[in-house]
Amino acid sequence: MPRINTHYQKLRAGYLFPEIGKRVRAFATAHPDARIIRLGIGDVVLPLPAPIVEAMKAGADEMGRRETFRGYGPEQGYDFLVEAIAASFRAQGANVAADEVFVSDGSKCDTANIQEIFALDNVVALTDPVYPVYVDTNVMAGRTGEADGSGRYAKLVYLPTTAENGFDPPLPDGHVDIIYLCSPNNPTGAVMSRASLARWVAYARKEGAVILFDAAYEAFIREPGQVHSIFEIPGSRDVAIEFRSLSKTAGFTGTRCAFTIIPKELCGRDASGAPVPLHDLWTRRHTTKFNGVSYPIQKAAAAVYTPEGRKSVRANIDYYMENARIIREGVTAAGYRVYGGENAPYIWLRVPQGTTSWEFFDRLLAEANVVGTPGSGFGSCGEGYFRLSAFGLRENVEEAIERIRTRMKG
Amino acid sequence: MPRINTHYQKLRAGYLFPEIGKRVRAFATAHPDARIIRLGIGDVVLPLPAPIVEAMKAGADEMGRRETFRGYGPEQGYDFLVEAIAASFRAQGANVAADEVFVSDGSKCDTANIQEIFALDNVVALTDPVYPVYVDTNVMAGRTGEADGSGRYAKLVYLPTTAENGFDPPLPDGHVDIIYLCSPNNPTGAVMSRASLARWVAYARKEGAVILFDAAYEAFIREPGQVHSIFEIPGSRDVAIEFRSLSKTAGFTGTRCAFTIIPKELCGRDASGAPVPLHDLWTRRHTTKFNGVSYPIQKAAAAVYTPEGRKSVRANIDYYMENARIIREGVTAAGYRVYGGENAPYIWLRVPQGTTSWEFFDRLLAEANVVGTPGSGFGSCGEGYFRLSAFGLRENVEEAIERIRTRMKG
Repeated sequence: MPRINTHYQKLRAGYLFPEIGKRVRAFATAHPDARIIRLGIGDVVLPLPAPIVEAMKAGADEMGRRETFRGYGPEQGYDFLVEAIAASFRAQGANVAADEVFVSDGSKCDTANIQEIFALDNVVALTDPVYPVYVDTNVMAGRTGEADGSGRYAKLVYLPTTAENGFDPPLPDGHVDIIYLCSPNNPTGAVMSRASLARWVAYARKEGAVILFDAAYEAFIREPGQVHSIFEIPGSRDVAIEFRSLSKTAGFTGTRCAFTIIPKELCGRDASGAPVPLHDLWTRRHTTKFNGVSYPIQKAAAAVYTPEGRKSVRANIDYYMENARIIREGVTAAGYRVYGGENAPYIWLRVPQGTTSWEFFDRLLAEANVVGTPGSGFGSCGEGYFRLSAFGLRENVEEAIERIRTRMKG
Repeated sequence: MPRINTHYQKLRAGYLFPEIGKRVRAFATAHPDARIIRLGIGDVVLPLPAPIVEAMKAGADEMGRRETFRGYGPEQGYDFLVEAIAASFRAQGANVAADEVFVSDGSKCDTANIQEIFALDNVVALTDPVYPVYVDTNVMAGRTGEADGSGRYAKLVYLPTTAENGFDPPLPDGHVDIIYLCSPNNPTGAVMSRASLARWVAYARKEGAVILFDAAYEAFIREPGQVHSIFEIPGSRDVAIEFRSLSKTAGFTGTRCAFTIIPKELCGRDASGAPVPLHDLWTRRHTTKFNGVSYPIQKAAAAVYTPEGRKSVRANIDYYMENARIIREGVTAAGYRVYGGENAPYIWLRVPQGTTSWEFFDRLLAEANVVGTPGSGFGSCGEGYFRLSAFGLRENVEEAIERIRTRMKG
């Protein structure tokens, strides 16, 4: 038998969401009459807006006619889409060129794959709690040692990001090479301030580090003046990569389209210390291991950037953010301390003292028949916290909150 | 600056097709009146059949209604698709279960990513000539040394597959761990016989190797009795993985859908020698670094397996295979020795003695304004050969052959 990649054996348990699924299925089997409300996995529920559906169907029709049929497209994405994306950055005050945009089938894929262009001996820093994909893909690649009892992997630098520091990721004590930042944050719902991001850019410039900036939730920022793109920060273009997604922005979780921005001046260094543009490396990776996003899906994605598309997408985000308000206020009224939910679709609450995140998960499921996500699933500093997602139908969100208020006083 | 993955620096030149694109663009700029006919890159030209377009549009409509909207789907693919795929294998006499099917966005991606679940110290064998993605992704992962003057990478085991051995890949002299086989073959157009595949399965069983079997072109097999799936071969289920694609089968190069079959009994071994199911490892990789194929695209893919879909897809394949016959006979009549094109959409011809593959590329472009693919782009044993693709519109194929006959006597 061939030898396996044994780094996979370092991975702790399954991915968080399959474990949640398992517990929910077991509960549902034991309690077939329970009306379970899911505010766990961050998955959208509103349908794709009409302009997006129409664009997708028009793309499908083009594929059905000889004169307009499309075979292999450019791996990086069609001009009509990358140009619309670049223009949307410029409208946000971020300097991004069309040929710095790489269209893909998801930010999960992009944030998972990006580490492949870096050497294995780079020191990686991530916040704790954190989106598990950043961690797991570095484990699978062999950039870590074994996990300890708390689930932390040797060699990774964890940056505790909790209520005690206002969920503002602290700079590492020493040198790191690669930093994953996510703002608005999944899971804490916090948004990084301009000052905080400027501090991070200064750190990266001083240390020669690269910031992998996940902005999958930027469309949920409500407060004016908050930073949407790291490229709004002066000096960021030679130290940062940004990930964006249409999954939550435009309801594309089942439609699949996202993109990554790599500025052309951003470099890593080779064994001799010579600079190598990361744009070149990612181009090689993207063209060798990927073959572009489906044409009708790219047409649908481009419709998000039309005035009509923008308006309908904005209406859906307003709907989810009204859910967020209802959750935030309702859970506060129920006696819990809550964070987030103001510039992000996630509400991060403190579970009652003496209770673990998974105990709260089980209790919430049993008593209120509501599914959330245990904070400890995102890292050891997530212990004692719990994530509720604002992605639900209004009536379900209202009922979930009513149940929490009446059955789960904090 | 972070350290880059320096294995990328071992890669020779760009990927083959960008280089072809560059030369064609340069020629077109210098000769704006030339009517260039492209039989180079293997890209389909016929539109998607109506049943497939209709299924995709129906899927798009479902995404536009609240009651039928779909968010995240199962990463491995929806039941309706994996069940249709598994049934199609059983109809071919290959024992494949629905939960052994992993739906993806392309065979390029799957054949590129599969190596990630194996240790870096496995010995990899591939045919020469070969589809460049198998080689390049192993180089990028660090499974090879540097390239030599002929473009061959140290540590890889190359299996010369030429007219001298009837394009039947010879078994390696010694032990190897991982073997890439492609049948019907890209680029040679040869199909591996049942006896040859049985010999390979026996070798893999004896040596404890795994066969990565790329059957992206199986739908083009015309001769009855030829092997479509490696799982038709007894004893293959614990030594083989199979890749299939709808790209050429159903005109999906721009629509993107493919799948990989990993039997549940297939194992690798860990550091202690204990067996580990590759199905588990690939499930972990697929669920961590990928997020499923777009729902409307999966609906379109499922339509390929309906009686109507099957019939329309078959008609397109017949069309391309009639092109293949025209090319094969025309190029033979022009005085060239040709191979393939009978069970595959590729015609593999010998270039005139004393000419290199790239010289023939330039001559064919200059004199006949026809684009093909130089055999040496697929490996050093491809030197002296040239690939013509049957994926063209009939009138273009006929004109290309007429030009070769009149201007390029072999």
